[in-house]
Amino acid sequence: MQRLKIYQQLIIDNFNEIFSGYNPEIKKLYDPITYSLEGGKKIRPVSVLLSTDIFEGNLKEALIPAFAVEMFHNFTLLHDDVMDNSFVRRNRPTVHAKWSVNQAILSGDAMMILVYQKLIELPSHKIKPVIEMINKTALQVCEGQQLDMDFETTLNVSLEKYMQMIKLKTAVLLAASLSLGAIISDASENDIKNIYDFGINIGLAFQIQDDYFDSFGELKTFGKKIGNDIITNKKTFLLINALSMAEKTDKEKLKQLYTAETKDEQAKIEEVKNIFFKLQIPEITKEKIKILYESAQKNIENLKGISSSKKEQLYEFAEYIIKREK
Amino acid sequence: MQRLKIYQQLIIDNFNEIFSGYNPEIKKLYDPITYSLEGGKKIRPVSVLLSTDIFEGNLKEALIPAFAVEMFHNFTLLHDDVMDNSFVRRNRPTVHAKWSVNQAILSGDAMMILVYQKLIELPSHKIKPVIEMINKTALQVCEGQQLDMDFETTLNVSLEKYMQMIKLKTAVLLAASLSLGAIISDASENDIKNIYDFGINIGLAFQIQDDYFDSFGELKTFGKKIGNDIITNKKTFLLINALSMAEKTDKEKLKQLYTAETKDEQAKIEEVKNIFFKLQIPEITKEKIKILYESAQKNIENLKGISSSKKEQLYEFAEYIIKREK
Repeated sequence: MQRLKIYQQLIIDNFNEIFSGYNPEIKKLYDPITYSLEGGKKIRPVSVLLSTDIFEGNLKEALIPAFAVEMFHNFTLLHDDVMDNSFVRRNRPTVHAKWSVNQAILSGDAMMILVYQKLIELPSHKIKPVIEMINKTALQVCEGQQLDMDFETTLNVSLEKYMQMIKLKTAVLLAASLSLGAIISDASENDIKNIYDFGINIGLAFQIQDDYFDSFGELKTFGKKIGNDIITNKKTFLLINALSMAEKTDKEKLKQLYTAETKDEQAKIEEVKNIFFKLQIPEITKEKIKILYESAQKNIENLKGISSSKKEQLYEFAEYIIKREK
Repeated sequence: MQRLKIYQQLIIDNFNEIFSGYNPEIKKLYDPITYSLEGGKKIRPVSVLLSTDIFEGNLKEALIPAFAVEMFHNFTLLHDDVMDNSFVRRNRPTVHAKWSVNQAILSGDAMMILVYQKLIELPSHKIKPVIEMINKTALQVCEGQQLDMDFETTLNVSLEKYMQMIKLKTAVLLAASLSLGAIISDASENDIKNIYDFGINIGLAFQIQDDYFDSFGELKTFGKKIGNDIITNKKTFLLINALSMAEKTDKEKLKQLYTAETKDEQAKIEEVKNIFFKLQIPEITKEKIKILYESAQKNIENLKGISSSKKEQLYEFAEYIIKREK
C-alpha cells in the first residue's frame, strides 16, 4: 500500500525531528531509546494516521498520538526482551544485549514518560480522552504480559485464556491506535467502537497467523526462524488446540515434548508438526483467521460516518496486516 | 508534627480505597504494587497536602497528585532496587526478592501507568500543568538514576556532578510535590517558584545529611546500618569532598580502599572515617547543610501569598525533614 509507505515516512521524519531536541548531556539514557525506535513496520502509528485520514481529522495533530503509541510499543518490547531473555530483535542485538539489563530498564522507564510528555502537546480538550485510551490500553498490555509470563510455567492453558492473553498483549494496542485516530477526528461513538473492534479482530487474526507461520510458514517470507515457538515451548493457538483435541497417546507425547529437555531441535519440531497435521490444526487455525477476518469486515460495514472509498482503505489495510507472510 | 500525621493517615485511607477497586483477576500484577506502597514516611504526598493547605487549595483534590507522586516514588524504588541488586527495603524483602526480577519490572511498569491514570481525574484545566510538572520531574529522576549508575564505575566524580545527581535523583521530586500543591491551588508564579526552590534546598540538605549519618550517625536513630555507603563504595558528599581535598598519601589510600576488594568491613569503615575526620569532612558537611537550610528559609520568606502562621508550618516541615535522624 503506497499510502502506508507515505505514513511511515511521515512518522520517521517526525521522530528524527523530536529526538534532535533532547538533552545531549544524558546521552546514555537517550541513545537506547533512539536505537529501539529504529526499524520495525510502524504498524501502530500508521494505524493512527490511517484512521485519522479516514475520519477526516488533522494529520499533523495525529502525529502526536502516533508518536505515543510507537514509543509505548517499543517500550514494551524493550522490557519484554529483558523479561524473555531475548537477545535479537529486528536482526540486531536487543537493548539489554547491546548495553545492559539496567540500562534497558531505565531507558524503558524514560520512554514511558516520553509517551505522556508527547500527549500533552494535544489541544487541551483532547488530552483527557486520549490519555484515558492510552492508559486503559497500557494497563491491559501489562496484564497480557503477566498472563504470558504465567503461561510459561504451565501446559494447562484454556483456549479462552489464550485468546484473552493475545487480545491484551497484542490486539488492544492496534485497536487503540485505530480508535485514537477516530477520537481526535471527533468521530461518532458508534464509529469509534467499530474501528476499535475492527482493530481487535485483525489484531487477533495477526497473532494467530504469526503462530501459524511459526510452524507452517516459509523462512524467506516469514522472516523469522521456523519452529522457534516449538523449541521455546511457547503456548500458541496451535498447541493449545492440539492439547485440547488430542487423544491420550498424542496428548502424552505433546506433554512430554513440551516438558522434557530437548536434545534434537529439528526432531522435536517434526514430531510436534506431525501431531498438528494429524489433528488438522492447520485447517482449524486458518478457519479461525477467516472468522476473525469476516468479523473485521462487518466492523468496517458498520462504520456510519465514512464513504465507501474510505472503507476500501480499511479493507486494504486488513489485507496488509493479515495476508502478510512477514 | 501532628498535622503531618493527619496527612499521612488521609493518604493511607485514600490508597486503600483506590486499591479495593482493582481487577482481582490479574492479582499477580497488582499484589507487588500494593505491597510496595505499604510503609514509608510518605514525605512526598504529605508535601502535596501541606502545600495545598498552605496555599488554601482543595485538600480532596490534592489527594490526586499526592497519590501520583507516591506511586511514582515507589515505582522508582522498585526498579532501582532491581538495578542496585538491593534485597531489603523498609525492613522487608524488596519486590524482586519476594517475587522475581521480571515481576518487579512488570509491576513497576504498571505503577507508572497508574500515575497518569490517577492524574486525569483532576479537573480538565489542571491536567496539563500537573502532568507537565510530573513528566519533567520523572525524566529528571531517570537522568539522576543514570548519573548514579555511571558513578558506580568511577572515582572521578566532581562535586558539581554529585550535586546535580542528588538534585535530579532526590530533590526534584520533593520540590515537584510541594509545587503541585501550589499549582492546583492557583498560587502565583512567584510562589510556585519559591516553594519549588524550597523543596530543592531541603531535598539536597536531606540527602547530604543522609550521607553524613551513614558515617557519623547512630544506628538507633538513623535506622540504617552505619557505614553501608563506605562498604558499598558509594560516591557520597563526604567521599567526593575528601577525594578533592586529600593530599597525596590519603588520596591514594582512599582510592585503594574504594577499589580493592574489602576483606575487613569494620576496618575499612574505620580507616575511611579517620581520613574524613582528619580532613574535617564532618564540619564541611554540616556547614553545607546549614547553607542549604538558610537558602530554604529565604525561599519561605520570599513567598508572597501566605500568612506568617502558614510560613511557620513550612519552617516546621523543614526541621522535620532535615533534623530527623531517621
